[in-house]
Formats: sequence, structure tokens, C-alpha cells
Amino acid sequence: MKFCSQCGSEVELRIPTGDTLPRFVCPVCHTIHYQNPKMVVGCIPEWKGRILLCRRAIAPREGKWTLPAGFMENNETLAQGAARETLEEANARVEIRELYAVYNLPHISQVYLLFRAKLLDLDFSPGIESLEVKLFEEHEIPWDEMAFRVIHDPLKRYLKERRQGQPAFHIGMIDRSSS
Amino acid sequence: MKFCSQCGSEVELRIPTGDTLPRFVCPVCHTIHYQNPKMVVGCIPEWKGRILLCRRAIAPREGKWTLPAGFMENNETLAQGAARETLEEANARVEIRELYAVYNLPHISQVYLLFRAKLLDLDFSPGIESLEVKLFEEHEIPWDEMAFRVIHDPLKRYLKERRQGQPAFHIGMIDRSSS
Repeated sequence: MKFCSQCGSEVELRIPTGDTLPRFVCPVCHTIHYQNPKMVVGCIPEWKGRILLCRRAIAPREGKWTLPAGFMENNETLAQGAARETLEEANARVEIRELYAVYNLPHISQVYLLFRAKLLDLDFSPGIESLEVKLFEEHEIPWDEMAFRVIHDPLKRYLKERRQGQPAFHIGMIDRSSS
Repeated sequence: MKFCSQCGSEVELRIPTGDTLPRFVCPVCHTIHYQNPKMVVGCIPEWKGRILLCRRAIAPREGKWTLPAGFMENNETLAQGAARETLEEANARVEIRELYAVYNLPHISQVYLLFRAKLLDLDFSPGIESLEVKLFEEHEIPWDEMAFRVIHDPLKRYLKERRQGQPAFHIGMIDRSSS
């Protein structure tokens, strides 16, 4: 951030009175511009045990596989965001169920929230950000071709827990060293 | 947002190519300024069954009671944020435990995430944003003097579930009609 989004003046980086962290502050209109982590919402869409994955048409990791997920938008709930992303990336309708995993990615100031989901019909197709959308049996999942650790790790754990009985909510972390 | 934070030009509100929602876009440097929901992280600090509450020294709801909670900062985890807020508002050290509740507040584009927590010692005192910090037995909690529905509701549910056995994670919602 270089300029104040309220008045267009050049901002300064300093610790405001009563605060503990440096913020971008406007010396003219005195607006403090806070910057906060973003949420990425997604789901694990299932159809008779098979998992719906999307092959990315865009950077980063173009050509790699991922679960439907993306940045949460203003004025929606977590579950609405996860369903919207699934519709956008896979033209697929899902019923969002339990929250399965929350992952901290502090090095890039993101929090991933992944829900279990029931795919409602087989009328899916690639959205504008996907090259291909496909249902995979567990043994068919292209683990070496997954786009992100934050998708690979919870999906792998989910399928293991599903085999063993009941998948259980967990909080995980991907940091700079593991991403 | 009126001006581009990258180059200082006046921004336009329009739907970028390939997008579905209006965004603030800079016609000069072409930066798209996304705006996303924010996370508020907090905890339910317990000491031998008693709950630590803070009386707010700042607007909104100055003078009302709340749990320690505040906006998550960049480069921290959810649990680190909840512990930091507890230190800032109550000068209290806690051990953060399970995630207890996630609340959607879509009308103000916020998501609250509240953890269970163990208060580690009795050396607490009001931080700069608090008038008073105090441990309450369940029957002493000033329910009519709570600052926010999004604190009142999960705390009430937590204490009821604690009486009945094991508090269980849940996702809740506070919308415009109930806030």
C-alpha cells in the first residue's frame, strides 16, 4: 500500500497511538488501513464415495488437481462461499455438511476452511478456472499431481479417517517450511 | 474505497473480465482491489469453572461485558490470535484448547472463531481496551449487560453444554435481524 484509498495521499507506515503493530496511516485524513488475513473456503464433494476434483486452468499450479475452494466474499457465510466456489469451478451443486478442517497458513496470512459436501447430481463441467473436473475413486486420486499441500494433506487424512470410521474435525497448519 | 492504494488514481467500481462481482479497479495501473471478510478470534478463558470477562473501555458498547476477542492479524495462527487478544485485553495468559464455535456475521462480513481456553494464572488486569476484568461463576454472569449477541449466544450455549457433559463444536449465525 502506497496511497490512502480514502483521500489519495501518500500513506506512512507507523504504529498508531494505543496500537502495537505498524499500520499504513494517512497523514492527511488520518485513516488507519488495517490489513488482515483472508479466508479460503472449499469442500470435499462426494458422490457414492468418489471425490470431485478440479484441474486448474490458472496460475499458480496450472494443470494440477485441487478441491473446489477460493476466497470467501463479503456478505456470505462460510458454507455459502464453499458452495459458490464449487459452482464456479466445477458447475456442480453440493449440499454443504460438517466443517472438516481448518488450516492456518500464517506465512501467507490465509486460513483455509474445508467442509464435507454431498454432490447433488452428475451434471458438472469445468468452470472458467478449471481445465477438467472429474470424480475419483480413492485409489485413483493423483496424489503427486495435487496443486497445494493445504488440499493434499486434509484430503489424504479425510480418506484415511473415512476408511477407519468417522472423519473428525481438526485444525492443521502449513507453514513456510512445509508448503 | 475511492483511490487506488498502489498508484493513487481514482478507482472505478466494475466487474472485471472473468469475474462475477463488482470490484474496485484502477483504470491506470489495472490493480483489482478485492475486499474480503475478516476474522475475529477469541476465547472462553476458564479458571476452576469460572469465566473471565472484560468490560469494554471503547466503542461500540462501552461499559458492556465481553469475552476477549479481536481482529486476527497477518502472520499469526487462529490460536495465536486468540491468545494475543486475551493478553492485550485482559493481561491474561491462556492455554488455547479446542475450537468451540464459529459464527457467521454476513451482514458485516465477519467470521468469529471462539476457542476454549485454560487461564494459566490469576495475575490479570484490564488492558487498554478494558475498564475491568473479572472471573464470574456461571450464575454471576451479567447476561443483560453483554456487549454482543455473537458473544452472548455461544457463551450461554457453552455453559449449558458444560453442565450437561461435553461442549461440542458448532457453527452459528448472527444476521441483521438478530444482531
